[in-house]
Amino acid sequence: MTTANPETLKIAQAAFQDFSHGLATGDWSQFLVWLSDDFTFWFPAGPFKGQNTGKDRAEAFLASVSKVFPEGLSLTLERTLSDGNTVLFEVRSKGLMLGHPYENQAAISFDVAGNKICAYREYMGVIFQIGG
Amino acid sequence: MTTANPETLKIAQAAFQDFSHGLATGDWSQFLVWLSDDFTFWFPAGPFKGQNTGKDRAEAFLASVSKVFPEGLSLTLERTLSDGNTVLFEVRSKGLMLGHPYENQAAISFDVAGNKICAYREYMGVIFQIGG
Repeated sequence: MTTANPETLKIAQAAFQDFSHGLATGDWSQFLVWLSDDFTFWFPAGPFKGQNTGKDRAEAFLASVSKVFPEGLSLTLERTLSDGNTVLFEVRSKGLMLGHPYENQAAISFDVAGNKICAYREYMGVIFQIGG
Repeated sequence: MTTANPETLKIAQAAFQDFSHGLATGDWSQFLVWLSDDFTFWFPAGPFKGQNTGKDRAEAFLASVSKVFPEGLSLTLERTLSDGNTVLFEVRSKGLMLGHPYENQAAISFDVAGNKICAYREYMGVIFQIGG
């Protein structure tokens, strides 16, 4: 185990800022710029459950998230952890999921390659099922 | 953000070994020794969903996990990340959930206080519902 170097950490933190902005506003344009061409992401549930590949797929996913949280989802950063090229953010989230009060906590892991994010894995702290 | 000191890391890694052993064998006695008297844990779903406090509650939870995975659950460690007193393990898991093939990935976060684990937060990579 090695700590991320300062440049890796800086890139991951800047991308995370734009990720938070996307969740809050529905505007994902800044976050999408960070993604590498071979970007992959992992999500726990729903139509994008499991491993997904490509920026187009990411764009569709992020748009779908903003449809579920049309008023935006606010993140509170609890901790930033790292190992090598991976930086992970423990967060709390709060908002309205299709109009219903929603609070969660999550671990969001970014892999950095060069000055891009090449992978994103989300792990959920509370399991919500829409309509469940 | 600061990297965990070597002693914190060593404690978290030793506790994680005993956590893995508990999942694999159903014998949680070694892991329970690591828990502080004010131990808290967070789990995403089921009867222990949300915040839980105390070693007795932890013992009941761990026993319930082993009932769901009577043949044991095997963890593969993917990454060990840290920040200050927190050490987080990104893992994959594999086993039989009540007889059915089960594979998941998770982020398991331990807070270290002295030579004990005072908090454990689990985040899930794939949402399974028993019978769902």
